[in-house]
Amino acid sequence: MKAVIMAGGQGTRFWPLSTPEKPKQFLNLLGPRTMLQETVHRLNPVIGENDVFVVTPPPYVDEILRELPELDAGRIIVEPAPRNTAPCIGWAVRWICRRWGDDVLAVLPADHRIGNLEAFHEALRSGEMLALEDWLVTFGVRPTYPATGYGYICRGEALPDTDGLPAFHVERFTEKPDRPTAERFLSEGRYDWNSGMFVWKASTIEEELRRWNPELASRLDELDDTLEPDELRSRFEALPKISIDYAVMEKTDRAVVIPCDLDWSDVGSWGSIRDLRPKDDRGMVISGRVENIDSRNCTVFGWDQKVVALVGVEDLVVVDTPHGLLVCHADETERVRDVVEHLQKGGQGSPSEGLDARVPEES
Amino acid sequence: MKAVIMAGGQGTRFWPLSTPEKPKQFLNLLGPRTMLQETVHRLNPVIGENDVFVVTPPPYVDEILRELPELDAGRIIVEPAPRNTAPCIGWAVRWICRRWGDDVLAVLPADHRIGNLEAFHEALRSGEMLALEDWLVTFGVRPTYPATGYGYICRGEALPDTDGLPAFHVERFTEKPDRPTAERFLSEGRYDWNSGMFVWKASTIEEELRRWNPELASRLDELDDTLEPDELRSRFEALPKISIDYAVMEKTDRAVVIPCDLDWSDVGSWGSIRDLRPKDDRGMVISGRVENIDSRNCTVFGWDQKVVALVGVEDLVVVDTPHGLLVCHADETERVRDVVEHLQKGGQGSPSEGLDARVPEES
Repeated sequence: MKAVIMAGGQGTRFWPLSTPEKPKQFLNLLGPRTMLQETVHRLNPVIGENDVFVVTPPPYVDEILRELPELDAGRIIVEPAPRNTAPCIGWAVRWICRRWGDDVLAVLPADHRIGNLEAFHEALRSGEMLALEDWLVTFGVRPTYPATGYGYICRGEALPDTDGLPAFHVERFTEKPDRPTAERFLSEGRYDWNSGMFVWKASTIEEELRRWNPELASRLDELDDTLEPDELRSRFEALPKISIDYAVMEKTDRAVVIPCDLDWSDVGSWGSIRDLRPKDDRGMVISGRVENIDSRNCTVFGWDQKVVALVGVEDLVVVDTPHGLLVCHADETERVRDVVEHLQKGGQGSPSEGLDARVPEES
Repeated sequence: MKAVIMAGGQGTRFWPLSTPEKPKQFLNLLGPRTMLQETVHRLNPVIGENDVFVVTPPPYVDEILRELPELDAGRIIVEPAPRNTAPCIGWAVRWICRRWGDDVLAVLPADHRIGNLEAFHEALRSGEMLALEDWLVTFGVRPTYPATGYGYICRGEALPDTDGLPAFHVERFTEKPDRPTAERFLSEGRYDWNSGMFVWKASTIEEELRRWNPELASRLDELDDTLEPDELRSRFEALPKISIDYAVMEKTDRAVVIPCDLDWSDVGSWGSIRDLRPKDDRGMVISGRVENIDSRNCTVFGWDQKVVALVGVEDLVVVDTPHGLLVCHADETERVRDVVEHLQKGGQGSPSEGLDARVPEES
């Protein structure tokens, strides 16, 4: 079994720490390792270093080689342009088949968190067995609360006689639900979170992509990296932006789900960091030099060259970098995307009316 | 009449914008001019540039000459060491008398705000007339609310037949009161805020200092700036730390108060900045590049090289500089001093447990 790690995310939700040059997968938001390093590391007992591939756009190749010194440059699959997961996976599958032949592939996002490694390894092994029988395997995460930020998978009939974990036909994929729907899903017990991880044979997913999206498949057939790079990019950019869920998984009858208890999170916002990191006795999550005077339940990311002082505040997320500062209510971290959108549209903050305080010299 | 501007404040309450290298008097917290520049500028119709003297410790001399290019270096009175206002004023008075002879002096802090210039000019002129009759004149500011952060002056009997504004013997100086006392002061109507400004003849204050603090006066007599600088500083450092209020004003029977409506503030904290600066329609006081997403009633000081984004927050003071960041509840700005104290004692913020997020490169 090979791992194909998708590391192309542009990550706007961790502004100002995440930037176009260094999106979420390259940040160490949860521990000493970056999200990408952690993603590779946690595969270790099941998929060894020599079977790890990383799909990424050209600007991130150098960063990936820096972060994963054990990774041979020949196992980085350069994604010519960002067109969502269906073109990305179609491209990566062809790229691998051409060089290495057919095999089982575990397709994994580079920027998620998994707390229960034992369950994850078991799920991978069970997934591999099912993939060998031509199933398209997804991991369904048992919901622990009525999340509205995740898609859900509804279990259908159980597969007979699996040697590994129990698995089920996928009855239905659903988009992110509203709150009452999420509560219903949670109480019905047949719905799992869609973790966005897949295990399948290269030949199976290629076949299914061809069945449900013959045009995309044949346009991918015409591409390979012997093309002149600009030509390759412009043809890739012309492909439809479409997710693998929509392109294949929602249509195929080969989709199965393995429900598992992964202690998983897609680490989708600063708010999720708060849930996933240790807190001090005042409920503070702290990284950097922080002076806390009577503040509670804040998440603070600073940097070692600068003091951040919090005085009498509660329920804030404060993230300081040399190029941007975020001060956000803990319940509003989803709206950080709005900040990035404003800035991309040329917003530069309100005018200062010529009353700017001068900035003291760096001491 | 000459002006003697005391510009020796170390200003810890405006951290991180104020620093030992650039305390409050050198910041433009309220408008395009620094507090010091504004202090000199507002004297203009009454006391011209050539009659302005500035008392300051050695490290600030260069900054003062930069900010006040019209000021002759020969009118900067170098304060050998910070020993509160009595030694400072005693030293400055002797320094001026030796070079320029006796005259009326208006002694003024460099870092206060006065909104009603007409009233101020009238008070200065009335003060000069009374000073020529050997009174020690203070300006009492009519209280507009029961402030607990200011000292108060209780009016006694009215002085007969003044040509200028009404003036009163000082019945009593009182320290900062508690809230019920401040409320009583406000309702009694005989109490004014002590603005810390004085008008007197050099010879009068010298005489009174000698009467009430003969030892301090005679030790000051022995000092002049022909002494070797280290010797001068060490002898000055040996003087008692004592305010002119305590050393003279509370004891003398020559103290008079002119109640006036100066629209005055000592600009004592970030909280006072909020009251003194224009707000936008969401109650925001903004300096710098600020992206406001649904935030209200915040005071934000950033700098032009960096975006500060506020998302869904209220009643905060956010001050960002290259060396420090303050996030403070609007009602807790008095506690900024605690931050500076912690840092001076070597506090460096909580340990980061080796989980520091890496800081993106400056873009």
